[in-house]
Amino acid sequence: MVEKVYGVGVGVGDEKLLTLKALEVLKKVNKVFVPISKKGKKSIAYEIVKDYIKDKDVEELLFPMIKDKEKLKEYWNDALKKILNEDGEVAIITIGDPTLYSTFSYIWKLLKENGINVEIINGISSIFASASALNIPLVEGDEKLCILPQGKDLEKYIDEFDTIIVMKTKNLKEALSKIKNKDDYIIGLVKRVTFDDEKVAIGKFDELNFDEFNDYLSLAIIKKVKK
Amino acid sequence: MVEKVYGVGVGVGDEKLLTLKALEVLKKVNKVFVPISKKGKKSIAYEIVKDYIKDKDVEELLFPMIKDKEKLKEYWNDALKKILNEDGEVAIITIGDPTLYSTFSYIWKLLKENGINVEIINGISSIFASASALNIPLVEGDEKLCILPQGKDLEKYIDEFDTIIVMKTKNLKEALSKIKNKDDYIIGLVKRVTFDDEKVAIGKFDELNFDEFNDYLSLAIIKKVKK
Repeated sequence: MVEKVYGVGVGVGDEKLLTLKALEVLKKVNKVFVPISKKGKKSIAYEIVKDYIKDKDVEELLFPMIKDKEKLKEYWNDALKKILNEDGEVAIITIGDPTLYSTFSYIWKLLKENGINVEIINGISSIFASASALNIPLVEGDEKLCILPQGKDLEKYIDEFDTIIVMKTKNLKEALSKIKNKDDYIIGLVKRVTFDDEKVAIGKFDELNFDEFNDYLSLAIIKKVKK
Repeated sequence: MVEKVYGVGVGVGDEKLLTLKALEVLKKVNKVFVPISKKGKKSIAYEIVKDYIKDKDVEELLFPMIKDKEKLKEYWNDALKKILNEDGEVAIITIGDPTLYSTFSYIWKLLKENGINVEIINGISSIFASASALNIPLVEGDEKLCILPQGKDLEKYIDEFDTIIVMKTKNLKEALSKIKNKDDYIIGLVKRVTFDDEKVAIGKFDELNFDEFNDYLSLAIIKKVKK
């Protein structure tokens, strides 16, 4: 039976954004599990680390992007069974950081419920890598920050937080169109940060071509213009 | 004159949480600048990376923790002068990630204003490392998250966000005491995450001994109990 499961964040795209600890763990485990959302579809997390784990035993775990919770539970339980059947230490890789909107969190919960020793290896998150790509800080001093998936409640918080991150949507334009007084805000858009096809833009709402950012691996960083 | 300045996040304490890229940059630059808050006081960022940069030319930059903005500007301008006087590429190290409440952001702004090429090398932030230490996710699915320095406006947002992080204070108890209906929330406290003297606790407000967490490198992660 499995002794320990590492939840390893592999960062955002650039394979050099892996931590030394993540690399050490991937080298030492008996198997690396790779979550995929569809059979035959490439795993982004695997693409990031594949050069480091060439001789490693790798197995896919299928977590389809469906809403039906009962159906999803079947997939999680299948994954759990596969993991429990391993010997010694194994790793499950995930893009970004395993604690922030990660598919890993579902299987993490199940592993804990089953008394399995889980250790999280943090990874660089897209929220930080995107601020770097835009060459701006997320927050300074005593500023407040919030993350709103799909721009949920954006109109409510737009003037209360110094920085707002909108992520987890393919349609940033729609998510941000709720903003009134659009000229009062500077918006940074980043798509597929640190990948070869990374795209970055910064400006006011009407100056931006949102069409280039219709990708699930996109996010927006919104800041009020200081007057 | 200096050609390029790297703002390098060195993570939270464990030297293995450095990224491969950060290590590569620290090895190649001509000089590593180390921010300190007081003359003679050890730099935490330097302590994290010192074994990697034994033969490196290292220079301190003094950024005292004072409120007087005019006085602070003098220190920043002194630091800027030192950096501009270097040749080739240099690095400035900072704990955590350089985009989140970093001392680096002040000098970053000055460097940009002076037309200097700046590249940010992201680091593991305490917000992620603390969630790992607590063995809980920060946010899942479509949950909303906010970061409130010193617990600013905590009473306003406590029931609107799924997860609230309070940081940048030595007195978490005072910052969190504003919460009404304290039994409705699970609070995770983490001090000096991944350091040898790391401390972790999780529970309801009245179950926690806040005295053990009176440290600037502490934070609280607050979640509503799901009923």
